[in-house]
Amino acid sequence: MSGTGVNLGALAEFNVAVVLDAIRRHPSGVARTEISTLTALSGMTVSNVCRRLVEAGLVTEEAAPARGRGKPPKILTLNPDGGFAVGVHIDPAVVTYVLIDLAGRVRERMRTATPTVQNAAKVVGEMAARLDALLLSAGVDRAKVLGIGVASPGPIDPETGVVLNPPMLPGWHRVELRRALSIVTGLPVLIEKDATAAVVSELWFSEPDERRDFAFVYYGTGFATGIAIAGSAVRGVSSNAGDAGHISVDPDGPICACGRRGCVGVVTVPRALVEQAVRDGVLTGAQVGDTADVLQVGTAFGLLADAAAVGDAQAMEILTGAARHIARAVVVVVDLLDVGEVVFGGPFWPQIAPFALTTLPDAVHSDPGLVVPHRIRFSESAIASDVAAVGAATLVLDDSFSPRAEALRIRNPDEAVARFSTL
Amino acid sequence: MSGTGVNLGALAEFNVAVVLDAIRRHPSGVARTEISTLTALSGMTVSNVCRRLVEAGLVTEEAAPARGRGKPPKILTLNPDGGFAVGVHIDPAVVTYVLIDLAGRVRERMRTATPTVQNAAKVVGEMAARLDALLLSAGVDRAKVLGIGVASPGPIDPETGVVLNPPMLPGWHRVELRRALSIVTGLPVLIEKDATAAVVSELWFSEPDERRDFAFVYYGTGFATGIAIAGSAVRGVSSNAGDAGHISVDPDGPICACGRRGCVGVVTVPRALVEQAVRDGVLTGAQVGDTADVLQVGTAFGLLADAAAVGDAQAMEILTGAARHIARAVVVVVDLLDVGEVVFGGPFWPQIAPFALTTLPDAVHSDPGLVVPHRIRFSESAIASDVAAVGAATLVLDDSFSPRAEALRIRNPDEAVARFSTL
Repeated sequence: MSGTGVNLGALAEFNVAVVLDAIRRHPSGVARTEISTLTALSGMTVSNVCRRLVEAGLVTEEAAPARGRGKPPKILTLNPDGGFAVGVHIDPAVVTYVLIDLAGRVRERMRTATPTVQNAAKVVGEMAARLDALLLSAGVDRAKVLGIGVASPGPIDPETGVVLNPPMLPGWHRVELRRALSIVTGLPVLIEKDATAAVVSELWFSEPDERRDFAFVYYGTGFATGIAIAGSAVRGVSSNAGDAGHISVDPDGPICACGRRGCVGVVTVPRALVEQAVRDGVLTGAQVGDTADVLQVGTAFGLLADAAAVGDAQAMEILTGAARHIARAVVVVVDLLDVGEVVFGGPFWPQIAPFALTTLPDAVHSDPGLVVPHRIRFSESAIASDVAAVGAATLVLDDSFSPRAEALRIRNPDEAVARFSTL
Repeated sequence: MSGTGVNLGALAEFNVAVVLDAIRRHPSGVARTEISTLTALSGMTVSNVCRRLVEAGLVTEEAAPARGRGKPPKILTLNPDGGFAVGVHIDPAVVTYVLIDLAGRVRERMRTATPTVQNAAKVVGEMAARLDALLLSAGVDRAKVLGIGVASPGPIDPETGVVLNPPMLPGWHRVELRRALSIVTGLPVLIEKDATAAVVSELWFSEPDERRDFAFVYYGTGFATGIAIAGSAVRGVSSNAGDAGHISVDPDGPICACGRRGCVGVVTVPRALVEQAVRDGVLTGAQVGDTADVLQVGTAFGLLADAAAVGDAQAMEILTGAARHIARAVVVVVDLLDVGEVVFGGPFWPQIAPFALTTLPDAVHSDPGLVVPHRIRFSESAIASDVAAVGAATLVLDDSFSPRAEALRIRNPDEAVARFSTL
């Protein structure tokens, strides 16, 4: 409830975003008259906006095939090659790089082991080199890259673009990633927590009003929960929203370092399940190796999932038990925020999914602690294991192109200029 | 991210709300030129809007005292008597009725014991009679009442206005409160969960942009947690957001009916503390009476707080311990949503406040489970014990008068007509 009125300049840019959004949501093309109907904007406004979008190379306009008499209408389609965005996801085990086009399609993908940072400059140099390789391999001109989005485990400081000291990234302490990466690459850099990037990705690829209030359960080396309220990602005052790790889910579980018992962020993550698999005799210590090493845990977790997939009863019970624990955390989140949907994804989600999807919905709905009087919808991200990297890239597109009513409010003259500077 | 453009009709009504909001936030009056500066609206728009507001009786306009030469400017002030709203808070123990004016001031207040519903029609009849008494006592014409807001423990069904079966209100099963109360009183009725009404109240009485992201810890017969994100109350898909009761806070606590151990909604509420006071010898069983009776628990909780206030060490430890448990739930909520502030209130908050405020902030900041890298602000609602009743009344004002950028979006022609029908 800000106290200012509507800025007519921002209004025009808002309408640009509304038109662009309508065009990108019609991959087979849409006529100006249809855009006018869809957006309730006047034909004149739509024509002016479309002309600017065509000139900027973001949209192409071609005559529809002739049908009967009369001049066929011109059809507008998004030009996927009109711009690109890079997404970088720093997982404790691997760094994933993706290049997406304006349509959100992944055009190139690359993975490397996560550096243990002692020398931040060296890490940034390595990242910049990977980006060059990514663009070269895709044959994309750097001038067409709108920016780089980075998804990282929290906590982060988005003001300074510093990755603070995430417990999942030993060796990473106050790395000034955003500024350093921007200087080396010459591109704008946005930084976001992994689970929040996943939420932005789901919103970007969903139909408008299809998904407004949901939780995103991010299952990777760590456990996180991104939130969307009223169609926007919840970032929080320091952009560190999304940590649900200390929700206690197992009254008989081990005491966590925080003093709670059976925290979901401890008892359900791959490392804990692999250790349990060794205790239960599903895997041998030799198969697992060092559980303090995230790469070895990832490999061992794959073996556990394989054993469950071929019917090993104890392996199945370990994964099913983890799903029941995640269900209890989901109940706490749903009770607090009354979201209608829970979306799952993250690097290790595909391995646990076959067991989670059969167990978790019933476990949530039959939990006596569930207060909301309706069914919850459960779904998987269409890009489960790459969701944070693609999400990081969509941050760039979202920042440039998403219509937001809030942008209409007059707040700060600098802000009004900052958006749509590409047009 | 809706797909529609800006509706010029709604834009005008939005500007009405912006101007009205600017006027109500200047209790000593504001000139048209100042409004124009504050809102960035043209002088012409401000003049037109002000004329409509004066005609509707919501605003008064008077010449400022003459100073030096020239015609003194006309000063606009909110007319507190231009309209009224009724708030009804159904607590398990008492029902509180308040009448507030356009300025949000409480003009009349009334309390009665909560009926145990067997006959919904009788309850509604009783409520309507209390409302008549409230208006009569305040000397306010019913024609000036904009509507009735009802705050109730959840779950509720806001579509049908039905109070479902809140565990805190035994005997209340699917009471069609909204419809029945509207028919009997002839007034529009809004229904909201108690913690959400408290959030709406805090937002209404705060400066714009002062409080955008906060949690409201509601301490009454039950424990609830309302949430504000980006300056709006989080209602959730079924308007049942705000239940944090099953956050587990005591690893050695009793197993809750939900299967978790030491749920905050069980171990910190007045009933549990009174029962502990009997076990610890602070209160006698005779003093306490029947702990299944909410009225007797309320009285006994007052005795416990009195004992703590005069320095009874065990009584102090009971209340301080409850504050530490609430702190752990606060950590889970802050980690998930990264809110910057936690506001406390509710019917029993004043009794626990002296101990909570000395213990809770440190307990939160020193919790090893706190992930966000910043200090949290802790504050008390200025109307702690009446916050839900006043909040229920502000629902009516908020629904009529708050500028919301989202209202600019073209969604449904019916909606556009529904707001500002009083002007």
